[in-house]
Amino acid sequence: MTTFNLDTLTAAFADIEIITDTAQIAKLSQDYHTFSPVLVPKLAGKVGDIVVRPANEAEVIKVAATCAKHRIPVTVRGAGTGNYGQCVPLHGGVILDMTKMNEVLWLKPAVVRVEAGVKLAALDKKAREIGWEIRMAPSTYRTATLGGFIAGGSGGIGSIQYGLLGDRGNIIGLRVVTLEEEPQIIELRGDDVQKVNHAWGINGIITQVELPLAPAYPWAEVIVTFDDFMEAAKFGYALGNADGMMKKLITVFASPIPEYFQALQQYISPGKQAVFLIIAEPSLEFLPGLVQQYGGEITYQKLAQDTGKGINLAEFTWNHTTLHARTVDTSITYLQSLFPPDSQLQLVEQMYHHFGDEVIMHLEFFRVRGAVIACGLQLVRYTTEARLNEIIQYHEAQGIAIANPHTYIIEDGGRKVIDPEQLKFKEMVDPYGLMNPGKSKVLEFKVSQ
Amino acid sequence: MTTFNLDTLTAAFADIEIITDTAQIAKLSQDYHTFSPVLVPKLAGKVGDIVVRPANEAEVIKVAATCAKHRIPVTVRGAGTGNYGQCVPLHGGVILDMTKMNEVLWLKPAVVRVEAGVKLAALDKKAREIGWEIRMAPSTYRTATLGGFIAGGSGGIGSIQYGLLGDRGNIIGLRVVTLEEEPQIIELRGDDVQKVNHAWGINGIITQVELPLAPAYPWAEVIVTFDDFMEAAKFGYALGNADGMMKKLITVFASPIPEYFQALQQYISPGKQAVFLIIAEPSLEFLPGLVQQYGGEITYQKLAQDTGKGINLAEFTWNHTTLHARTVDTSITYLQSLFPPDSQLQLVEQMYHHFGDEVIMHLEFFRVRGAVIACGLQLVRYTTEARLNEIIQYHEAQGIAIANPHTYIIEDGGRKVIDPEQLKFKEMVDPYGLMNPGKSKVLEFKVSQ
Repeated sequence: MTTFNLDTLTAAFADIEIITDTAQIAKLSQDYHTFSPVLVPKLAGKVGDIVVRPANEAEVIKVAATCAKHRIPVTVRGAGTGNYGQCVPLHGGVILDMTKMNEVLWLKPAVVRVEAGVKLAALDKKAREIGWEIRMAPSTYRTATLGGFIAGGSGGIGSIQYGLLGDRGNIIGLRVVTLEEEPQIIELRGDDVQKVNHAWGINGIITQVELPLAPAYPWAEVIVTFDDFMEAAKFGYALGNADGMMKKLITVFASPIPEYFQALQQYISPGKQAVFLIIAEPSLEFLPGLVQQYGGEITYQKLAQDTGKGINLAEFTWNHTTLHARTVDTSITYLQSLFPPDSQLQLVEQMYHHFGDEVIMHLEFFRVRGAVIACGLQLVRYTTEARLNEIIQYHEAQGIAIANPHTYIIEDGGRKVIDPEQLKFKEMVDPYGLMNPGKSKVLEFKVSQ
Repeated sequence: MTTFNLDTLTAAFADIEIITDTAQIAKLSQDYHTFSPVLVPKLAGKVGDIVVRPANEAEVIKVAATCAKHRIPVTVRGAGTGNYGQCVPLHGGVILDMTKMNEVLWLKPAVVRVEAGVKLAALDKKAREIGWEIRMAPSTYRTATLGGFIAGGSGGIGSIQYGLLGDRGNIIGLRVVTLEEEPQIIELRGDDVQKVNHAWGINGIITQVELPLAPAYPWAEVIVTFDDFMEAAKFGYALGNADGMMKKLITVFASPIPEYFQALQQYISPGKQAVFLIIAEPSLEFLPGLVQQYGGEITYQKLAQDTGKGINLAEFTWNHTTLHARTVDTSITYLQSLFPPDSQLQLVEQMYHHFGDEVIMHLEFFRVRGAVIACGLQLVRYTTEARLNEIIQYHEAQGIAIANPHTYIIEDGGRKVIDPEQLKFKEMVDPYGLMNPGKSKVLEFKVSQ
């Protein structure tokens, strides 16, 4: 890569907040790829040279222009809560920390426009003042930024109702600054937002986002336990398809996963399977009937009035599950698998039995093109990379799509092929290939030509 | 049936509004079964003896006690907008008109409790004051009452998001008065509401309803036209499955149906297929992309700010379609058919070609147990009852479920078999079989024993 003079940079960024302390830089060169024992050695020692924290779009433009001029790599980050090394600078350079750009620009019923660095929880709180909330969020929503969520993708709590960020309608508009000597500001709207959504933050610097909102129901949190794992899974699926019951989370854990949740021991007996729910209070009266149908038992319930107090169930789901398991056993890692639509969940059952205690079932239900789908974030008792790959290949051979979280290369993960529209846009907004170079095989090839 | 003395009745109802004018009684013994050339002769001349219009539950109880004591048939009605003769008294007696009991008892975010005679439009207006609205409504929502909607079933505008009234969660609670000498008041909640939902108003007198609400999005109305019918249908299906796009109506009309809509001629060229939509404004920017994919053209759009002005697209859909067609050609009647889930809509295509101009495709998309389903409210150029039955049988033979709107007998219509829970409840709340007797084969048998 191009070498550059750090003093030239600090001079160029005179009015902008910068961080040159190496400990701080090292911290801000990290994310949660540490969940993967495969990624950890591969990304070890990768750090930026300087952190820049712009306060507004004018400052972003100044950074972009300077980096383009001097051909300095730029790695954009929000809170660094991603799990695929998106925020780890592969070739040093500038870490562009967007967290100071956190303003809610305007808010009206069903739509909000914000700066990209806004934290999801803060945005949610603001929207709830007028009776709305964000449609979906990862389990890291307390710290994660909206820009980071969009760049890293792809869905979370709320996706059982609204699908994924990549579905038409879930992002209304995006504004990006290009990495050029004279940076452009580009507003993408409608279907065009997909040029930037889930593009690992390397398709321009997202500065603003316009987002549709969801109604802020009074949400209750519920734990249901079951003796039988498949009954728990089928209950989750049935609730997912109950059109009259509003919910934003349906998580199913095979035993012994709930035992990793120390704060919840009194609600889940050892050996039980557990389902965690966030369900609208007007639908709560209908839960016992459905629970009974599958032989479950409601063991915990927190009403909307107590939101924010005590236990927060969401923070045990999605990839927080892996986090909790790893605090008990650091040898644990995880998979990301998309089971094909199937009302009988046959492949779930097959995998559940096939791997036994080596791959422990954790399902999140969400909608994919209208259908309720079981997504597995199975916990894996890691032994070797070869065995992990074997497990992945076995799933793929059965028709279960794996979005491999053990690679930092885009094409080796969930996307397989970079969307040609994204690629075309990439070439326009980052003509010198400066945005965290090394993330993509295709791009690497193009840039080195 | 038991004979009774009208003077005894009017005396017993001294404090209650009654109607004895025969022209008025005849009018209030009617509904919109007139869409069916088969039902018209069968229900001709069926009228009540008196109309009673209670102002509160105490008056309902008085009417119920009196009718039970004297074994007088009671036919409960809302606005009489049903299409299966639900409001036509088969054996005379009292017409219980519930339209004066129209109070909104309480309203909070996401839930409302009302008296059963409230008009849907009035309830909707009230709920919108706090940012909510009813989840679903028939095309007759301007005049229809909530109690009538629930008794007659089963879904409508909004069902593409929330399914049908019969789905868990779409009615929270119901209060009924029994037909006994000493009437009881029974509150049904949760799954138990199904004992009364879609029971033709013969399972107790519904006096109150507790209903979950939907977020009041700013709704836009849109017409999209297509050259090809199947492209129009597939567009509708795709929009139905677009989880990120909020909508409450997806109606597809084969040509020449749009030609029956005189007020809309400037928006739909002769020979075109048309899709009518109600879509949330935050999703509107995503419509052109989807429309283009199926070769359609947006020809009309009304934004939320103009709601209530000019054309009201909803009033051309569901069974209003039949109404408009019949104002042009009274020989037209209709079907109600549920196509099995199928992303290719193959049976829709097969029926479209098979019947040509005799059965003209009109589809409403809605959700059934999580899946987007095409419901046909096809227009039929009626010739004879035999031919109509032949058409119905042909559909059924292909696996298309028909909810026959050409019978007033429950078991011959959509339900085929009365739910045993409904039957058990019926025996408890109407022990003398006084609620519009003659509606059910099973009940008739039981009562005459």
